[in-house]
Amino acid sequence: MSEPIDFYFDFISPYAYLGWTQIHGLAARHQRAVRPQPVLFAALLNANGQKGPAEIPRKRIYVFKDTLRTALHLGVPFGAPKSHPFNPLLMLRVCSLPMESAAQKTLIDACFHAVWGGPGRAVEEPEVVAAIATEAGLDGPALVAQATGEENKARLKATTETLLERGGFGVPSLWVDGELFWGLDAFPHVERRLEGKDPLSRIDLRQFAGIKPSATR
Amino acid sequence: MSEPIDFYFDFISPYAYLGWTQIHGLAARHQRAVRPQPVLFAALLNANGQKGPAEIPRKRIYVFKDTLRTALHLGVPFGAPKSHPFNPLLMLRVCSLPMESAAQKTLIDACFHAVWGGPGRAVEEPEVVAAIATEAGLDGPALVAQATGEENKARLKATTETLLERGGFGVPSLWVDGELFWGLDAFPHVERRLEGKDPLSRIDLRQFAGIKPSATR
Repeated sequence: MSEPIDFYFDFISPYAYLGWTQIHGLAARHQRAVRPQPVLFAALLNANGQKGPAEIPRKRIYVFKDTLRTALHLGVPFGAPKSHPFNPLLMLRVCSLPMESAAQKTLIDACFHAVWGGPGRAVEEPEVVAAIATEAGLDGPALVAQATGEENKARLKATTETLLERGGFGVPSLWVDGELFWGLDAFPHVERRLEGKDPLSRIDLRQFAGIKPSATR
Repeated sequence: MSEPIDFYFDFISPYAYLGWTQIHGLAARHQRAVRPQPVLFAALLNANGQKGPAEIPRKRIYVFKDTLRTALHLGVPFGAPKSHPFNPLLMLRVCSLPMESAAQKTLIDACFHAVWGGPGRAVEEPEVVAAIATEAGLDGPALVAQATGEENKARLKATTETLLERGGFGVPSLWVDGELFWGLDAFPHVERRLEGKDPLSRIDLRQFAGIKPSATR
């Protein structure tokens, strides 16, 4: 099997939720594994000096309608979060803990569902996060206790830092064979790359003065 | 024929360019006309308190690669603009002048091509804009002279204002039967809406506390 696909996400993003519901099927079609990479979207925004969609009223309204449209089209459950924006830090840290791959996927499924699968739960609360993990078949209280250890806090920061080094600024982001892809709408590009048909592979980018691909590496 | 599709664009945006190359085919498949609506993207950004992709270094690099990928995939000519960002105001004003529909389409084609069809031309210069219009079969010098009249300057501002009232924040934006769509990736949603299959039409949005559709009208 070739390199796994790194899937960078934050639970705050409905596009990351929709992407998470689609990436496993896409990866499986191309015999790839998915390596979940929790990152703090707010830290990406700060590092890039950018506002999030939720901070721009017209964009906030649009994003909700657009993601709801896409969810209905894909047949993915979609509900309004309990509050938004909210603090996703504890859930991200719990999902950053080293654990077996299937357990981590189940846990991330459960966390995304608790926010966006509706009705939204109070996912900022440690006891709620623990309950979500327990319902997913894990030891919720133990995970929540471990999540806030210094080593694990550093883990989430390091993942966020790696995405920045790879040229990232939003979620979901995917790192596929040395290239960054951003957003649900980039999935067709990802699919072509996995098929060996990324059109950028066949041209010399140096002809484009405005594009500096080395800076994304 | 039903209501035309309003296509809001600024020549500064490679996504608007790509969208312009696709919207006419899409509209024709559904027996709709396209009503071009030039707007100043910088004014949208200011009104929404938002930075443009070109102001965020990582996003700037990504957007160029993403649009180049899409252009190569679609078989649309794509080159680096002479400089970017640049001031698109004169071109937008020329394209805001009242004129016959076919002439306006030819002119917008020519302007987009001069920026993004490569090699990029010095489209901030009045004589270059006049030459582009003349090559498109129009009276370039006359159009450039008329473009900066007060009435026409107000026309571009009014179009930009209408997009803001409709909930807009970026380009390309499309207004289709009372709904706003943003970006090239929204074209499948637009197509479904034109087919009477917009999934949002079949649900009651009032169940979503976070979505206030009335604010987008």
